[in-house]
Amino acid sequence: MSLISDTGSGVYTNVVSEQVFDDANRDLSLDERAALIDQFHWVRRETESLTDPLSAEDMQLQSMADTSPSKWHLAHTSWFFETFLLRDALPGYRVFDQSFHHIFNSYYNSLGQPFSRPQRGLLSRPSIEQVFSYRAHIDRHIEQWLIEEDVTAAQAELLTLGIHHEQQHQELLLTDIKHAFSQNPVYPAYREDLDQFADEVDGGTPLEWLHVPEDHYTLGSDGEGFGFDSFSFDNEGPAHQRFQPAFRIASRLITNGEYLEFLQDGGYREPRLWLSDGWSHIQQTTKPGVQQAPLYWREIDGEWFQFTLAGLQPLDLNAPVCHVSFYEADAYASWAGRRLPTEFEWEIAAWLHSKKDAVQAANLLENRRFQPVAEYPTDERDVQLLGNLWQWTASAYAPYPGYRASSEAVGEYNGKFMCNQMVLRGGSCVTPRSHIRISYRNFFYPHQAWQFTGIRLAGDVQ
Amino acid sequence: MSLISDTGSGVYTNVVSEQVFDDANRDLSLDERAALIDQFHWVRRETESLTDPLSAEDMQLQSMADTSPSKWHLAHTSWFFETFLLRDALPGYRVFDQSFHHIFNSYYNSLGQPFSRPQRGLLSRPSIEQVFSYRAHIDRHIEQWLIEEDVTAAQAELLTLGIHHEQQHQELLLTDIKHAFSQNPVYPAYREDLDQFADEVDGGTPLEWLHVPEDHYTLGSDGEGFGFDSFSFDNEGPAHQRFQPAFRIASRLITNGEYLEFLQDGGYREPRLWLSDGWSHIQQTTKPGVQQAPLYWREIDGEWFQFTLAGLQPLDLNAPVCHVSFYEADAYASWAGRRLPTEFEWEIAAWLHSKKDAVQAANLLENRRFQPVAEYPTDERDVQLLGNLWQWTASAYAPYPGYRASSEAVGEYNGKFMCNQMVLRGGSCVTPRSHIRISYRNFFYPHQAWQFTGIRLAGDVQ
Amino acid sequence: MSLISDTGSGVYTNVVSEQVFDDANRDLSLDERAALIDQFHWVRRETESLTDPLSAEDMQLQSMADTSPSKWHLAHTSWFFETFLLRDALPGYRVFDQSFHHIFNSYYNSLGQPFSRPQRGLLSRPSIEQVFSYRAHIDRHIEQWLIEEDVTAAQAELLTLGIHHEQQHQELLLTDIKHAFSQNPVYPAYREDLDQFADEVDGGTPLEWLHVPEDHYTLGSDGEGFGFDSFSFDNEGPAHQRFQPAFRIASRLITNGEYLEFLQDGGYREPRLWLSDGWSHIQQTTKPGVQQAPLYWREIDGEWFQFTLAGLQPLDLNAPVCHVSFYEADAYASWAGRRLPTEFEWEIAAWLHSKKDAVQAANLLENRRFQPVAEYPTDERDVQLLGNLWQWTASAYAPYPGYRASSEAVGEYNGKFMCNQMVLRGGSCVTPRSHIRISYRNFFYPHQAWQFTGIRLAGDVQ
Amino acid sequence: MSLISDTGSGVYTNVVSEQVFDDANRDLSLDERAALIDQFHWVRRETESLTDPLSAEDMQLQSMADTSPSKWHLAHTSWFFETFLLRDALPGYRVFDQSFHHIFNSYYNSLGQPFSRPQRGLLSRPSIEQVFSYRAHIDRHIEQWLIEEDVTAAQAELLTLGIHHEQQHQELLLTDIKHAFSQNPVYPAYREDLDQFADEVDGGTPLEWLHVPEDHYTLGSDGEGFGFDSFSFDNEGPAHQRFQPAFRIASRLITNGEYLEFLQDGGYREPRLWLSDGWSHIQQTTKPGVQQAPLYWREIDGEWFQFTLAGLQPLDLNAPVCHVSFYEADAYASWAGRRLPTEFEWEIAAWLHSKKDAVQAANLLENRRFQPVAEYPTDERDVQLLGNLWQWTASAYAPYPGYRASSEAVGEYNGKFMCNQMVLRGGSCVTPRSHIRISYRNFFYPHQAWQFTGIRLAGDVQ
Repeated sequence: MSLISDTGSGVYTNVVSEQVFDDANRDLSLDERAALIDQFHWVRRETESLTDPLSAEDMQLQSMADTSPSKWHLAHTSWFFETFLLRDALPGYRVFDQSFHHIFNSYYNSLGQPFSRPQRGLLSRPSIEQVFSYRAHIDRHIEQWLIEEDVTAAQAELLTLGIHHEQQHQELLLTDIKHAFSQNPVYPAYREDLDQFADEVDGGTPLEWLHVPEDHYTLGSDGEGFGFDSFSFDNEGPAHQRFQPAFRIASRLITNGEYLEFLQDGGYREPRLWLSDGWSHIQQTTKPGVQQAPLYWREIDGEWFQFTLAGLQPLDLNAPVCHVSFYEADAYASWAGRRLPTEFEWEIAAWLHSKKDAVQAANLLENRRFQPVAEYPTDERDVQLLGNLWQWTASAYAPYPGYRASSEAVGEYNGKFMCNQMVLRGGSCVTPRSHIRISYRNFFYPHQAWQFTGIRLAGDVQ
Repeated sequence: MSLISDTGSGVYTNVVSEQVFDDANRDLSLDERAALIDQFHWVRRETESLTDPLSAEDMQLQSMADTSPSKWHLAHTSWFFETFLLRDALPGYRVFDQSFHHIFNSYYNSLGQPFSRPQRGLLSRPSIEQVFSYRAHIDRHIEQWLIEEDVTAAQAELLTLGIHHEQQHQELLLTDIKHAFSQNPVYPAYREDLDQFADEVDGGTPLEWLHVPEDHYTLGSDGEGFGFDSFSFDNEGPAHQRFQPAFRIASRLITNGEYLEFLQDGGYREPRLWLSDGWSHIQQTTKPGVQQAPLYWREIDGEWFQFTLAGLQPLDLNAPVCHVSFYEADAYASWAGRRLPTEFEWEIAAWLHSKKDAVQAANLLENRRFQPVAEYPTDERDVQLLGNLWQWTASAYAPYPGYRASSEAVGEYNGKFMCNQMVLRGGSCVTPRSHIRISYRNFFYPHQAWQFTGIRLAGDVQ
Repeated sequence: MSLISDTGSGVYTNVVSEQVFDDANRDLSLDERAALIDQFHWVRRETESLTDPLSAEDMQLQSMADTSPSKWHLAHTSWFFETFLLRDALPGYRVFDQSFHHIFNSYYNSLGQPFSRPQRGLLSRPSIEQVFSYRAHIDRHIEQWLIEEDVTAAQAELLTLGIHHEQQHQELLLTDIKHAFSQNPVYPAYREDLDQFADEVDGGTPLEWLHVPEDHYTLGSDGEGFGFDSFSFDNEGPAHQRFQPAFRIASRLITNGEYLEFLQDGGYREPRLWLSDGWSHIQQTTKPGVQQAPLYWREIDGEWFQFTLAGLQPLDLNAPVCHVSFYEADAYASWAGRRLPTEFEWEIAAWLHSKKDAVQAANLLENRRFQPVAEYPTDERDVQLLGNLWQWTASAYAPYPGYRASSEAVGEYNGKFMCNQMVLRGGSCVTPRSHIRISYRNFFYPHQAWQFTGIRLAGDVQ
Repeated sequence: MSLISDTGSGVYTNVVSEQVFDDANRDLSLDERAALIDQFHWVRRETESLTDPLSAEDMQLQSMADTSPSKWHLAHTSWFFETFLLRDALPGYRVFDQSFHHIFNSYYNSLGQPFSRPQRGLLSRPSIEQVFSYRAHIDRHIEQWLIEEDVTAAQAELLTLGIHHEQQHQELLLTDIKHAFSQNPVYPAYREDLDQFADEVDGGTPLEWLHVPEDHYTLGSDGEGFGFDSFSFDNEGPAHQRFQPAFRIASRLITNGEYLEFLQDGGYREPRLWLSDGWSHIQQTTKPGVQQAPLYWREIDGEWFQFTLAGLQPLDLNAPVCHVSFYEADAYASWAGRRLPTEFEWEIAAWLHSKKDAVQAANLLENRRFQPVAEYPTDERDVQLLGNLWQWTASAYAPYPGYRASSEAVGEYNGKFMCNQMVLRGGSCVTPRSHIRISYRNFFYPHQAWQFTGIRLAGDVQ
């Protein structure tokens, strides 16, 4: 019996795919347009509100090639709407600034050589004021287009993609500024008043094991219909069947306290616990006299702290360990005698054990905690796999059977990254609530740890 | 219906696994020991015969960190028997040279810090004569042990592992010396008299598509019983069930002629054809004024040649293209409007379409061609998926469900490499015949091309 | 006969040296203090005026490890006064911010591990407003100290060192922001209204040769007395005698037009013209399809432009070629059949051929051209060796005979850089007028070209 | 009064220079030719004798880009005679192997792109037998040429240059194989029977200071006449006058015992002792948990050893410290409150204080110790500045006034390296006796330490 086979019958509506849905060319109704305008404006405002605590200088920072300045995120998300919609869809549209086409292109090689990624932090011009003007210009014209012009369903899907794309950058804006601030020896706080430790659990929550039976399951999502809420990325589909042996999966994430035990047990010095590439990586990044540890941990006079968006804080032993690489997650699992779940195991467990309002209950961006919180004890039908932290899976990021990227420029969105990266699932404390879903596939290189990443264990059933 | 489900019932006898077979402790019969002695000596002699054309200076060469000197291969394979068997199994055994324990350890961190891999070429001492003495010493004592001592089935499996390990190094010895020779501007021939072009097909063989229906298949191997011929590595199991959608797969490998079309069509200059990491890789390795091409292709005065173990030869347009990276294979497939097969698709196709004597008929090490040869037209039940070239698959190298590496030192054999590498299937013209099988999983990083690697295409069935 | 032997008798007053002048401990008069207050305030204001055209984002930029953000220059120069004077000299002084001691230390290892140089651009905090407050704090307290406390001559010398140190950073602030802006594809102008091309010479000025006879000369400077105007750095002394064979030296700098001839003659492709390290350097920095050229030259549709502090401008063929490395200067000299002068030849020529008001007439910072200008024909007693561009000499930066660095922390100022760098002489269009003098020794690595560097040729006399 | 001004009147006979001596075109007499044949054969045989203890595998080793395989030295020195003499001078000469022109070119870019230096260790072909045949071929034809053809004085100078060039490679052959062997954890001995510690001084020799008065001195050498014994390289001239202030210089080299004090006093941890680039260098090359020390020192269980050409030996505290970089030499001098001598000071001291037979008495290659030995007490007219170890000077390698490199291909010999390197003087225990002289200028980069390099201190005279 397939758990979610009913979703497999849905029409595959994602415009990023080449599969064209039946009514791609039908025009949107007025109500549909009004809903789009609302969603668009709401997400655009949310992005800007995230920059409220930041100065022009803060928004200029780029602390490594993997990250981008806040200013660049603000501009690039606007560039996306201009490039993939306004240029073609709005008659008479004039681009805001010709030079932006080059400098705010992220990686779309088919639109011309993108501006060198590691140098985004060198763009003091355009100024932050110009970038906000750019945003206002885009907002005005998207609204004008939605009001004045015919809008097809296919175009609406592209706009929806742009909105979700902007939500991805909301998350990146926060993870990137956190990394930048972590480089400053004064450890600036993004916001001093985050009450992320308010709800601290008193004493640890026991780790329990959920058992999932062997079966054939349908996995992935083709989108469940039309519109913002039913959107999914092309890499989440096609929905397809898999056979899954029985397995078990942990009821909660690994805590700082548990990870500290691994560290204190010499976990970073025992090669047998590590993947070969992971062991090489920690050898290369070891600094003389400094204990290897998760990215933002700091040992000061024998006590452990961690850098957060509220500045440097004592390590909360009951909270989930965060900012670990895949290598660290895998080594921890080996030390614990377990393994990481595959992305399919994670997805099945999430469908089976999530309660109805799992997304509503999760610790996500809108909670404004910006830090994972200790998890409460749960019963079996109420396990929270969503939120708090992205969870490394044992699955390499690869196409689902039948996947094909669009041959349009926008087709460079997902498929070309399907090599050398690992899938993460679940969303984190900086993921927008309307952006996450069970079928969502995030992906990063196994050495990377500046995202809010954590560890959930799994095991075989003998 | 499961194609190979009958193999799934076999006892999982691989000693590398923690799963202990019933009679691991039973003693071998005299006949069984005699057979082992034969296999052991035969493989050891074969290794040495491969060095016949090489001088002491040749056997010293190490042309990059990925490769090893021939001398090191000769010694390390002996070290394996000494370390994992003789030290413990043969009473009174005295090691040949204490220093060898360190310098001929490849990557077994649990046995102590291995000698620095990129510096293997700096070991002029021990001399090649000493290394051959070492081999003779090991041979004598393994024989003594098999004759004089009780040998358990578990020990016999470990010996068998050592023999297969040596066969892996036979292949590496050839691929590594080929790479070393390719760095020499005089392009030395390993052997001048290789008749690898004798059987050239007159005109191309048409590429046909084999259709495989959707079904549940059992994949992988737990070993089919005891002994050398039924051996399989731990990473080939456990045998397990998978659901496979319908697909089609090419009847032959892509030829030099076909790949040349891709190159001449600007394949190396079109980012949309490439995975993101692949595109970065070819940007970084481009030399000014030199056309990107497969590793051993050379353009001289407008004509294409390729470096072979018989020296520099004109490019044979009908022969399969070889020494391509995964990135190149994937880009070619994109250009051709196809994709690479998953390792599971490859394995299913091999079981369905291989004739009985597929291994016997394949172009493997014993053919002494050391170069892929053009393929003949075949009928559907007689497609040759084995031999000629390792075939890049779309599958990242990962554990099969239920896989666990041994916790012994020898457990560092396969599992710790299950990250960042891609699976290759099929064996090549330098793979020993008794070493290859359909379930065999080879694995390399996607940028690597010094193995005999080629391209087989696959496609979806709409 | 010694040309400038009379300066050798001056008292060596430089406090950086260990040689203590007679009255190091005497207290300054009120007039002397008043003069110091004036100089101090004037230089401090000048620094700040240079940042008028810059936004907070501009002042955050760091485009390579060699350069620093404008904000950092503003703060570090203040740190110098706080660290080497106020902490000790002003009773009851409270440091502005404890964290600044670490983050604004440039390279004084004896004061603790300096903040990582390549990461200066990541310090968005302190904000630019805080840095200006820091400056005001320092200004107030230096003034308070000079008015209220006893000030010894030795302390006055240290203050004077700090003022000259700040002038060095005025120059660096401009060269660094130029480099940062050059990375931005929109080529921002520091100021649009620079009239650097107003005085263009109509037609080229002929290059003439000045002959200097063989003799014993006294070179270097020990300072000519007390105070700001007679200050010299410790590396300019001790004054000492040298024997100099006859030589000749060019009456003007090499022009863009002349350098273009070298380029068009294939100068960058002819290894015989280059020092071995220079040839390696240009091989490593060549980009496919881009002609090697001076740092800020850009070839657009077959025409040459150069990036200036007024933005991208057509190349002025009569103006001196600027932003060349030592390797380029040396290769040009070889191509022209000449050589670069030693620093001693340059200094002798400057003393012999400069007219009285050479410094006043030179193109320096206060001219606000920020670009070298074409030189007018001159007669032999009126050759302008100062200003316009720093001139690479053939001399490695080394101590003069008898040189000893101070053993105080401030002694890390000059001596520890006396290896691997080449001496430049003359000052440039961004050097403050009161900062330059004939004995001044600047020094950079031979591959560096982001300073305003140019070429003056010399030759032997047969 | 000039100490060695009489040498200045000698005819400048060095063919490398462009200055043509009067009788460059005169033909050699039979006696002169016979003498050349003797010298040529003697040096060629000496080179080969140095390879007696080496196997074909040893002679293949290249342990870093700075070093070359012994086989390459054997071939390249032969290539020099073929390229610069036989090709042109011997009618009907046929090159031994066309491919050698490329692969045995060291750095003469004007003869075509040389074979990649770091890959010399990959040339297993030609074999060592072929290289010895190549040498015999060259020897035969040089002899034939000298017997049968007219030989001009200019050609004889070129041959002499080739002979001295081969002597340079004798030294490099030994330093390079020492470096290669040092990488092997079994620490092979080049020869076990070196009695380098036979003459150990019982107790230390006191360090005394030689005083040299201020004066004008003539330095450098133009060659003292014609022939092998009066040869000097072009970089040793022109002879020229310098004014030298008074100074003092140490009577002997710094010992291992003295250097150990520096190390134990924390010399490697005190940034104030180091040049800025030196401090960076030791930070970058520090390995966690390993004490920085001279290149071949090894600390084993708390005791110090050093690797020598006779294998690993206990550190002899009375012997001179060797294999130190310029950075280490300079830091030691700072720690000792002294400085390194300039190359001019060294040369003056050598002329003033060397006894007649200084070269005969020195510890040089022919002593076959291959290791510096402890120095005996000396009187002031009998100070030994030659032999034992090359001595780092404070002088950057630069052209003497009036120096011009030849415009021929052979002109790439010395001049193009005159940047970023430091001069060493004196010769070492592996320098041929007939090769060294007081005016000899050796040069290496300041971080390099694989030559036999040591420390002689100097100081100012107040």
